[in-house]
Amino acid sequence: MSSASRRNAGFQPELRKNIVTREWVIIAKGRGKRPSDLRRDADPQEDPPQYDSKCPFCPGNEGKTPPEVFALRDGGKPNSRGWSVRVVPNKFAALRADGSDALRSVGIYSARDGFGAHEVIIESPEHNKDLWEMDTEHIEGVVEAYRQRYLAYEVAESLRHVLIFRNHGPKAGTSLVHPHTQLIAGPVLPHQVHLELLGAGHYWEYLGKCVFCDILDYELSSGERAVFESDHFVVVTAFAGRYPFETWVIPKRHSIRFADMSEEEASDFASVLKEVLRRIALCLGRPSYNYAIHSAPTTDYNVRAYHWHLEIYPRITTLGGFELGSDIYINVISPEDAAKALREVGSE
Amino acid sequence: MSSASRRNAGFQPELRKNIVTREWVIIAKGRGKRPSDLRRDADPQEDPPQYDSKCPFCPGNEGKTPPEVFALRDGGKPNSRGWSVRVVPNKFAALRADGSDALRSVGIYSARDGFGAHEVIIESPEHNKDLWEMDTEHIEGVVEAYRQRYLAYEVAESLRHVLIFRNHGPKAGTSLVHPHTQLIAGPVLPHQVHLELLGAGHYWEYLGKCVFCDILDYELSSGERAVFESDHFVVVTAFAGRYPFETWVIPKRHSIRFADMSEEEASDFASVLKEVLRRIALCLGRPSYNYAIHSAPTTDYNVRAYHWHLEIYPRITTLGGFELGSDIYINVISPEDAAKALREVGSE
Repeated sequence: MSSASRRNAGFQPELRKNIVTREWVIIAKGRGKRPSDLRRDADPQEDPPQYDSKCPFCPGNEGKTPPEVFALRDGGKPNSRGWSVRVVPNKFAALRADGSDALRSVGIYSARDGFGAHEVIIESPEHNKDLWEMDTEHIEGVVEAYRQRYLAYEVAESLRHVLIFRNHGPKAGTSLVHPHTQLIAGPVLPHQVHLELLGAGHYWEYLGKCVFCDILDYELSSGERAVFESDHFVVVTAFAGRYPFETWVIPKRHSIRFADMSEEEASDFASVLKEVLRRIALCLGRPSYNYAIHSAPTTDYNVRAYHWHLEIYPRITTLGGFELGSDIYINVISPEDAAKALREVGSE
Repeated sequence: MSSASRRNAGFQPELRKNIVTREWVIIAKGRGKRPSDLRRDADPQEDPPQYDSKCPFCPGNEGKTPPEVFALRDGGKPNSRGWSVRVVPNKFAALRADGSDALRSVGIYSARDGFGAHEVIIESPEHNKDLWEMDTEHIEGVVEAYRQRYLAYEVAESLRHVLIFRNHGPKAGTSLVHPHTQLIAGPVLPHQVHLELLGAGHYWEYLGKCVFCDILDYELSSGERAVFESDHFVVVTAFAGRYPFETWVIPKRHSIRFADMSEEEASDFASVLKEVLRRIALCLGRPSYNYAIHSAPTTDYNVRAYHWHLEIYPRITTLGGFELGSDIYINVISPEDAAKALREVGSE
């Protein structure tokens, strides 16, 4: 452990395993110091300005973030103005680059250092734009940043998984208005991805084909939940979606990893992302939402049955004790009605 | 199907299985008509009155709910004033008593009717009290209502599980201020309970003992996460808690089902519930919270390794895309710090 990290040793995040369910949880005390945490009532800016001099992600404030690890720039030195997309380590990281990779016992329990990476992909110099309001060419740059940073962690031997996710709006856990995506690379497989891998693996073994490819075929032929398709992607509402208007973007080509997209596919993905987010914003009145890219684990796993995709979760309802206590979600809008609304808004 | 139910046939809820992860979701369109759903900003009453003439759960408005299925009464006829605790079917039920028990195919997917029960346990005639503000004797009546309604569904052959849960406050998914608990009995095992059963079963097979009994022993000896104990219960913060201040109430006696409590244990449980909710309210400034009673499935399962308990989830942070996309939760307060705060507030 370096002396710099020893100074912050009190904040070393910890991964802890639930001894009953075996699910991992991150205990990250340091994150409690973020201004948005533990505030009982969110205080979202209803109509944020294009530039906010206090925002650490706005141009001119590059010194307020840790040094950048990637940027698309027209000019200027690193950590100065001139960027269009900029990636920095998260100052309030849920996982940190230092720490041991060893599992340890805490009495009857298991834990390990919160080892990994947590980055912020600042999507635009403009403070107040949602991703879909940017030009397609600009979104292509954001997707390129996703790809580059995904690849940077995929090779790390001690990391098992990279999750790229986005929070937009006060009901989606956003701590800063400025448009950004986050990347967390960790040493354990997320339970949700584990369940998908297991399910896709069994489907492949029993039926000899990919469950996501079957979803594509079935949804395109039935049409009930299909929203639109492009050359390389299909957009559908999820048959058993947990959230109202839960929408998936699935590549037509069977491909296990997000970063395996060709340049043409990546460009198509950017325009599909713009279009689906635009439609959700129009349908639901610019709701809070999250999305996450589900991609195969980075190392040593039989993943041929997997098929990467993007899941979008609009946050227009509040989870209650039934969802938290059972993991069965109640979705109050049928996916067929949601798909119909998303299709109809397309022509506007 | 009765003619009454046929009139509402459009609202028959549906259970749908995620074809990849095999998790069940409830699609319940009718619930979208609740006033609180789909409203983008909750409008909680900051300081609700003791009586609200518009509240369907306040005395005098018994006709605004479906007829009661259980009540503790000093007098009065059913569905009139005079009750202290009253149980009614949920008017906006997530599951309904009618419908078929058969699994059906929807193309490549599986679904079944949203068959089951959804009840509301109205805890008090008073509109504005949280549960812990009621007398212990009154809470004993609430616990008795839990037990009676749990038992009513435990015998139903077509139902696999009964979940009793409580939502308090705007961030916890509460639709009505009036103090109440809900019960949902359904034909499928919730994923969270399935995971606990699997984990507890493996622990029992490998080690020959109950994982929850081990948690009790270890937490009482270590003291780090113990909050307090009574004759029959131990209150601890969860070692790998998903939520800040996530707190579990575990019976000392190895007991698989909630309804197996003796009268003495039930009375003790009522006072423990009051005390732990009081401490959480004092520590966190009356936060929104949920709780859920995890109890063994109702039918034909090898459940000897299970150990029922209550889980309390304060809702002081907002879930983001990382939690939704990975099922790994980031908890910004260490369970040890939370337990210390909950111990210290006890002497106030």
